[in-house]
Amino acid sequence: MTARDAYDRLVAHGRASADIGAALSLLSWDQQVMLPAAAHAGRAAQIGEMTAILHRRATDPAMGEWLAACEGSELTVDPASPEAANIREWRRDYDLAVKIPQDLAVALARAASAGQRTWELARKDNDFKAFSPKLKELLELSRAKAEALGYAGEAYDALLDGFEPGETTAGITPVLAELRDATRTIMDAVAGAPAPAPLPGGPYPLADQQALLAEVTRRIGLPPEASRLDVSAHPFSTMIGPGDVRITVRYDTSDCTKALFGAVHEAGHSLYSLGHDTGDARHGTPMGEHVSLGVHESQSRLWENQVARSLPFWEHFLPLAASLFPQLAGLSPEAAFKAVGAAAPGLIRVDADETTYNLHIVLRFELELALVRGDLAVADLPEAWNAKSEEILGLTPPDDASGCLQDVHWATGAFGYFPTYSLGNIYAACLFEAAGKAIPDLSERMAAGDFGTLLTWLRTNIHEKGRLFRPRDLIAAATGQAPTAGPLIRHLRAKAAAIYGV
Amino acid sequence: MTARDAYDRLVAHGRASADIGAALSLLSWDQQVMLPAAAHAGRAAQIGEMTAILHRRATDPAMGEWLAACEGSELTVDPASPEAANIREWRRDYDLAVKIPQDLAVALARAASAGQRTWELARKDNDFKAFSPKLKELLELSRAKAEALGYAGEAYDALLDGFEPGETTAGITPVLAELRDATRTIMDAVAGAPAPAPLPGGPYPLADQQALLAEVTRRIGLPPEASRLDVSAHPFSTMIGPGDVRITVRYDTSDCTKALFGAVHEAGHSLYSLGHDTGDARHGTPMGEHVSLGVHESQSRLWENQVARSLPFWEHFLPLAASLFPQLAGLSPEAAFKAVGAAAPGLIRVDADETTYNLHIVLRFELELALVRGDLAVADLPEAWNAKSEEILGLTPPDDASGCLQDVHWATGAFGYFPTYSLGNIYAACLFEAAGKAIPDLSERMAAGDFGTLLTWLRTNIHEKGRLFRPRDLIAAATGQAPTAGPLIRHLRAKAAAIYGV
Repeated sequence: MTARDAYDRLVAHGRASADIGAALSLLSWDQQVMLPAAAHAGRAAQIGEMTAILHRRATDPAMGEWLAACEGSELTVDPASPEAANIREWRRDYDLAVKIPQDLAVALARAASAGQRTWELARKDNDFKAFSPKLKELLELSRAKAEALGYAGEAYDALLDGFEPGETTAGITPVLAELRDATRTIMDAVAGAPAPAPLPGGPYPLADQQALLAEVTRRIGLPPEASRLDVSAHPFSTMIGPGDVRITVRYDTSDCTKALFGAVHEAGHSLYSLGHDTGDARHGTPMGEHVSLGVHESQSRLWENQVARSLPFWEHFLPLAASLFPQLAGLSPEAAFKAVGAAAPGLIRVDADETTYNLHIVLRFELELALVRGDLAVADLPEAWNAKSEEILGLTPPDDASGCLQDVHWATGAFGYFPTYSLGNIYAACLFEAAGKAIPDLSERMAAGDFGTLLTWLRTNIHEKGRLFRPRDLIAAATGQAPTAGPLIRHLRAKAAAIYGV
Repeated sequence: MTARDAYDRLVAHGRASADIGAALSLLSWDQQVMLPAAAHAGRAAQIGEMTAILHRRATDPAMGEWLAACEGSELTVDPASPEAANIREWRRDYDLAVKIPQDLAVALARAASAGQRTWELARKDNDFKAFSPKLKELLELSRAKAEALGYAGEAYDALLDGFEPGETTAGITPVLAELRDATRTIMDAVAGAPAPAPLPGGPYPLADQQALLAEVTRRIGLPPEASRLDVSAHPFSTMIGPGDVRITVRYDTSDCTKALFGAVHEAGHSLYSLGHDTGDARHGTPMGEHVSLGVHESQSRLWENQVARSLPFWEHFLPLAASLFPQLAGLSPEAAFKAVGAAAPGLIRVDADETTYNLHIVLRFELELALVRGDLAVADLPEAWNAKSEEILGLTPPDDASGCLQDVHWATGAFGYFPTYSLGNIYAACLFEAAGKAIPDLSERMAAGDFGTLLTWLRTNIHEKGRLFRPRDLIAAATGQAPTAGPLIRHLRAKAAAIYGV
């Protein structure tokens, strides 16, 4: 077999896997958005079977043979070529996949599906005890996965690397510490300043919020004919397949910004998905896939924070919002900008302002690291959470529903996922700073409703690169320098200065 | 391998296939109810891949070996045992599946997915020419399928047998002729009698119709926690998996009965599905599956016609309907019963009254038989449809959207499907007559809101039998006599007498 033949087979294999993976993605989306209550056990079994099929395909010995035929061939001469990148990334995926026994992969997928449902009910009932056996099972399965994957430093690294290739506990710890310290400095400074007036209270009727979200997401570039907007307990976004990205939010009729920022955040994810998998020749190959969760999050956070919490955004969108919600009629864009930029620690991560957001990540990172290390027992999690919350946020949750049960991640076995949120914040700030240099009149453009110029810059520099580079190298290539927390800290300081005058 | 070991493997194989099949069912449901417009090409590819997986499983040579180990063993001594029935039906499925090349199975599934979308757009635009190349492709693929399956009489038989095991063109032709002649006799009789007053006109607001449908379907036995009600261009029902049946309707704010009878019809299908696949040991085996589309349709039509178009139904539900729609407040149950039982030929099958309904089937049967035989070219279908419509219904459609483009079936390659609707009508009447004998006070029970007694009788005599018997034998076992058109014709005559006094 020639290298080109082998490569063509890898492409065909990848495309078919992507199309089969779409069915698995749909099973998962449907479980969170549409599934009748009585069907969760059946759904876990269905997800288990589909996971087994995809794991078999990912570990197919034929892949090993095709890869061997490609490696060292003319296809890998130029490491920046799409072929070389695809071969390199398929090799990474394959070598990781074959380390995980199929039984473990299926057990994790089934437990994640069941865990999601158990979590939903436990959170609703504020009943950690109902959740803890499932959490224990998921933690044990995740530890087994880490052992199967292997690691140089510690078990947590194997899990983190699965979400963010190249990151380690040792590498992420000082970054999070830097963010924590910078956040504290900013919060100390704003503590004495008067807080901006909040947005007027509700009601913000559901139908009008839906109309606002549809229009905002459309204007920032999410095509209605290739997307859906639905409701779920935990907002998320997913790409089912080419031309099919789906976002969810939850509505609060007393506050329209929760759904608004949620929708813009998830739209940011979806814009990235539509930008890397365009259904063409790249579909089903690493060049048509997202490179990491940190980079994925950089796209959602950039649109949520750097765009939707900016003054130009409100200059453009406030008239639309005021036409739907009369209580906003007298408001100035500056007042809206300040209201949505207020920095105040809260209990709920997904409702956090952008300044204190990373404190929530520090909290979760320290706890999940302790869980994976075995330094913290699942039974002791609520107490440990509450103590950390007091230490880091200065707040103690009144109940577990607003404490250790607030997030879905651990319920799906996603240990090692949370740090990617802070990496996303860091990358978003790096990218927006660079975009601002490349597009000098970006603020004026956004105020005039032109978000396409920014989107095009992101498409060219991030989306279309697929998995060509490692995450940090991708950001460096896009911005001209290695990513650091500097731009994010500068951004947060500037915001504090603009809002609090500090 | 012992017969028992082989049987256990067949069960495990069947369960896994059912769970994988759930993903395919969900892809299809989602395409009709949720899919963004830009995603239809991708969806067809996904459906193609999943079909290939399921076809490979259905034709797995291991199944042949396991079956051989079971056949003639102690498991098949009692032909009425679940094991013997499962082995017999798996054999039927396997022998049929291996006749169909995988390429053909996948091509049919892809063309059906694409055809569905093409049909939707063509119907909307009243543009038969946009649809005809796809219809031609589907017809050719279906003919190829018939050739692959083989047949004794004619090609159409192979397709019909796939939907209704044991039925043939020669067998169904006189049955449909009997229904056509009986319908004409009834229509001639009512022609001179004054028509009953129709129900008051709209508006029937969407939200109130949804509330009515939710309550009616719940009261007749469809559990809300195991079902969904959505909207689609062509109403349908599907079982995704255990505890997960989904029905769709379309609403007309000028007439609440379209969605109401549609919902009860689809609920009847779903009650059957929940009754045969209860997610227990039968899940994934023939004993947990529906036996034929004719029997499936008997369940939907029984609930739609014998129940929801009956006087006791309106005695029970009219107060609820009147509480939602004030224009119904002065109406008597008798007047409602007569209004919804009026017999008048119309152009649209799914809106047809129960008396003239079978004329629509006769029309489609004759046309699709001619298409499969090659006696009618696809290009000539609109003209042939209009001529047949005039001949059989006395009406010529003003356009193809209300003519040959009105139904989705051919757009999904389902040639040979339509006769199962009339068989369903026949079986429904047989079953309801027998249920009435077994439950002497059935009318009083329904008028009092007790639909559970009827449902239990259907569960015991039909749903729980799975594929134990061939369709005709199942009806015979439930009713004590071989099914004929007699009960249906008696039912329609009695209705004409009650409403028109003829």
